Amino acid sequence: MKDLFADANFPRTLDQRVYHLGIRAGEVANRIITVGSPSRAKRIAGLLDASPWHLTTERGFLIFTGRYQGIPLSIVSIGMGNSMADFFMREVRECLSGDMVVVRLGSCGGLGDVEVGSVVVPRASIAVNRNYDYDFQTGQSTEPPYRYSKPVQADEELRAAVAKALRDTHPPTVTAGVITDTINASTDSFYSSQGRQTSFPDHNSEVIRNLQSLHKDLATFEVTRSRLFALRSVRR
Amino acid sequence: MKDLFADANFPRTLDQRVYHLGIRAGEVANRIITVGSPSRAKRIAGLLDASPWHLTTERGFLIFTGRYQGIPLSIVSIGMGNSMADFFMREVRECLSGDMVVVRLGSCGGLGDVEVGSVVVPRASIAVNRNYDYDFQTGQSTEPPYRYSKPVQADEELRAAVAKALRDTHPPTVTAGVITDTINASTDSFYSSQGRQTSFPDHNSEVIRNLQSLHKDLATFEVTRSRLFALRSVRR
Repeated sequence: MKDLFADANFPRTLDQRVYHLGIRAGEVANRIITVGSPSRAKRIAGLLDASPWHLTTERGFLIFTGRYQGIPLSIVSIGMGNSMADFFMREVRECLSGDMVVVRLGSCGGLGDVEVGSVVVPRASIAVNRNYDYDFQTGQSTEPPYRYSKPVQADEELRAAVAKALRDTHPPTVTAGVITDTINASTDSFYSSQGRQTSFPDHNSEVIRNLQSLHKDLATFEVTRSRLFALRSVRR
Repeated sequence: MKDLFADANFPRTLDQRVYHLGIRAGEVANRIITVGSPSRAKRIAGLLDASPWHLTTERGFLIFTGRYQGIPLSIVSIGMGNSMADFFMREVRECLSGDMVVVRLGSCGGLGDVEVGSVVVPRASIAVNRNYDYDFQTGQSTEPPYRYSKPVQADEELRAAVAKALRDTHPPTVTAGVITDTINASTDSFYSSQGRQTSFPDHNSEVIRNLQSLHKDLATFEVTRSRLFALRSVRR
């Protein structure tokens, strides 16, 4: 039997847990590292001071909360896609007071001259979305097949701090460097909106060229970042 | 150590598994029921003829393959959001030959006069997406805050068959009925694009009114269906 919800606007369980992440106030720290996969979250959680508190929800979220060198820190695995990022940002926000500091750590595809093994700290992200109103069956349409948003900016203070920390701790044996002067494209499909060819008619052969002509400093592709930046930029 | 991928266009592991769902040809049936949550997938899998084959991947997918009354059937939990639906459709398609029949089973929010407990089989879905180019901070913009797609059609033959089967097996003790003459809105956020008020300035107080004035027969909200319909409609 499901819980009864008193509020359809922002549903919580009877014990005041946000519905999709399953946490409540006190179970998440103001400093958060977010990743896409549970195994990466577990690996990072292994660096915390002692056995952290953790919660797995069946909606695809895994949350660890503990301390790193004495400082409260949460690690949250949020799966793939901007919808998942949206659930994460809104529900965690409701469990916190004060600043919410989010660093996203993930792997991504490189465009152009990004050396494998590089760490990229983008200063902004473009959202790339398939346009449902384009006629993908015929390719005949007055609409474009994909929409490219304007760059959504990262928090500059946080980005600079992350970049400095990465440079200060960069292993001298690793030749690939820390890249901080580029932007990222965050897409609604790993396949069509990143220009891959599958068995569906995606009319996407121009996607990478279009993006590169719009943004000379585009360096990486992934599927989650733009919503994190977008919600950051509007927080009151 | 990660697998080495020979093809960045459609990556597979060395044993020919598609990368995010983790399956390969022979492990998925042409008839598929897809759901959002693992517990629902497990419950349905309990109805299969014998203990089904199953696979959990850390990207949020859970797959059961077995037989129902002798007919091969897969049940796939795909989590939340259209990006997850996109991974599912493309990677399963690459593991199958012939027709791929997908029925999505999920819960959703009702708009207007939909009785709680109703089963709704929409004939189309609208995609509702937050417009990253709108200025959500100030509310000053020449852009609209949300974009509403045209209706994306379900497969009519499959929809009629599902609706007939649901009516034929409808328990007489359940007063809520089977609704088949409405459309659905599939949104990129459970919160902002469905008109909920959270602590972010979403400028979404008009979303439901706008949708209802565009589509008199809009009955339900959820977060995954439009991409399933969109990829169905273009399959060659």
